[in-house]
Amino acid sequence: MAAVPMIELWRGGMLESVHAGHAVIFGPDGIEAAWGDPEAVIFPRSSCKMLQALPLLESGAADAAGLGDAQLALACASHSGGGIHTRAVEAWLNGLGMAEGDLRCGVHMPWDKDENKRLTCSEGAPCQLHNNCSGKHAGFLTLNRHLRGGSEYVEIDHPVQKAARAAFEEVVGETAPHWGIDGCSAPNFACTVTGLARAMQFFAAANPDGDARQSAAARLTRAMMAFPELVAGEGRACTELMQACAGQAAVKTGAEAVFIAILPGQSRGIALKIVDGGTRAAEAAIAALLVRCGVLDPAHPAFDKRLPSAQKNWRGFTYGEMRLAPGFG
Amino acid sequence: MAAVPMIELWRGGMLESVHAGHAVIFGPDGIEAAWGDPEAVIFPRSSCKMLQALPLLESGAADAAGLGDAQLALACASHSGGGIHTRAVEAWLNGLGMAEGDLRCGVHMPWDKDENKRLTCSEGAPCQLHNNCSGKHAGFLTLNRHLRGGSEYVEIDHPVQKAARAAFEEVVGETAPHWGIDGCSAPNFACTVTGLARAMQFFAAANPDGDARQSAAARLTRAMMAFPELVAGEGRACTELMQACAGQAAVKTGAEAVFIAILPGQSRGIALKIVDGGTRAAEAAIAALLVRCGVLDPAHPAFDKRLPSAQKNWRGFTYGEMRLAPGFG
Repeated sequence: MAAVPMIELWRGGMLESVHAGHAVIFGPDGIEAAWGDPEAVIFPRSSCKMLQALPLLESGAADAAGLGDAQLALACASHSGGGIHTRAVEAWLNGLGMAEGDLRCGVHMPWDKDENKRLTCSEGAPCQLHNNCSGKHAGFLTLNRHLRGGSEYVEIDHPVQKAARAAFEEVVGETAPHWGIDGCSAPNFACTVTGLARAMQFFAAANPDGDARQSAAARLTRAMMAFPELVAGEGRACTELMQACAGQAAVKTGAEAVFIAILPGQSRGIALKIVDGGTRAAEAAIAALLVRCGVLDPAHPAFDKRLPSAQKNWRGFTYGEMRLAPGFG
Repeated sequence: MAAVPMIELWRGGMLESVHAGHAVIFGPDGIEAAWGDPEAVIFPRSSCKMLQALPLLESGAADAAGLGDAQLALACASHSGGGIHTRAVEAWLNGLGMAEGDLRCGVHMPWDKDENKRLTCSEGAPCQLHNNCSGKHAGFLTLNRHLRGGSEYVEIDHPVQKAARAAFEEVVGETAPHWGIDGCSAPNFACTVTGLARAMQFFAAANPDGDARQSAAARLTRAMMAFPELVAGEGRACTELMQACAGQAAVKTGAEAVFIAILPGQSRGIALKIVDGGTRAAEAAIAALLVRCGVLDPAHPAFDKRLPSAQKNWRGFTYGEMRLAPGFG
């Protein structure tokens, strides 16, 4: 099946642009709703960081290092590289007797407005702590210390990545047909949209007092919902949508327009991919599905921010709006 | 007809994202090649600024104001708001006995890296001169002085916009079925992809010594090619592609992934729209069509920059590449 139109941009009463995608809502009994091709194979990118973090907890490495929910939220984060993020990751690494140089995520300018301005205006250079994946990598380093693996923990055959792949494939319920190198240099494993939604349903239904994997999944979900500002940052969709859902959903974006949601109260998981990689559409689409599931109030400003009923130009004139495509949401 | 896949993003040997669109190459005898739906109705956005500038020349207003090619290039520009752009527009307005406050384009932060940094680090505020459309609006003001219209020159029934609409519809060869408010508050008129390509073919074939419209079109095309850095800015696709085509093509982007090209030596016009509004794909697609038409050397760095054969992450590792979809380009 082909991708279906999901998000439309209208101007002057005319459809100007449209985004198509695939989405699945997975419940306790399987697929409850689907759009496009549920079997489409995608790279989850950063939307599956909570899957990559499972071995960190299941191995006992997290407890051995005394990690709290803030660190677990950072392990699942694509953070903005603001002060609250970089300081927390730096302290975490120091607690392990490690430093920024042990990371293998690479360097990019932080998205956080204040930190970006501070670096720009002081001619300062960003470091790996600013990388949006530095928390995930701190988690990898924590697991690696426990596994006593080599320093190049992002290599495909490294014990850390073998553990991440095994956990990913087991929870997704599929053998990854492909893998690619992510922006942060870690391997990213492909799966179907249904597999990703199934994994999120597992997280949603996970019993905190269950086996190692169940309790790990439940704890990671709780950590993400407890620290939405650490999972992304000020003004970001993941942060604002989790705050708006007030404990009813953990949501996470991935590059190239992937989005997932974990709905613990409903034992439901959601996964979607906008095929053109348009983030604006992925954010609008997940917001619509959160409303559909009843965990996001459509009257909440976080919804209209992602699916604007009135888009304004530089002089404040309304020129159009974003809409859900017929049949979606 | 539906949009067809044009640009693919691959990672780890797997197709990760894809952009679909419509494109038409229009020659002296009509459509020479087309992809997707040539009759798809689109908003050209800023890709049609040279059409909006026709009345400025045809009316005699440009000559009466003593405008040169630099100012005509700015009239067709979506510039980066760098010093070379803002100083030129300011001087132009002063020459008319007007100032920044007479503009009606609104304010946004400049895209130019240096000017953006200067304003950010000095707590300075951008002004309307920084708006990427300030040159087009200086052209509107120049025409307006000639027409003795009121100050609100962006209103749909203002003589300036009536003249712009008439020129647009005549050269496109269609009556606009819709109009919308553009980012800069000026009206933007809808047309088919074929109509937009037909208009660009008219510009490509225009005789400098022909009638008022022909000479105006030829002069605007020459001005864009003579000042590629004024039409966009450092690092921007329009600027770099025009420089790479070395006088064989004038190219112009429009918001929501529209791109046009005027090929004077071949009397050919090109127009394309990526339906999802993805700029990266519109830039890659126009680069591919410029190569197809023989005006851009595929070995030129400007081509690989827009359609990267090797995409690298933050650590410099190649993770994938951009490709033309089968059957496109």
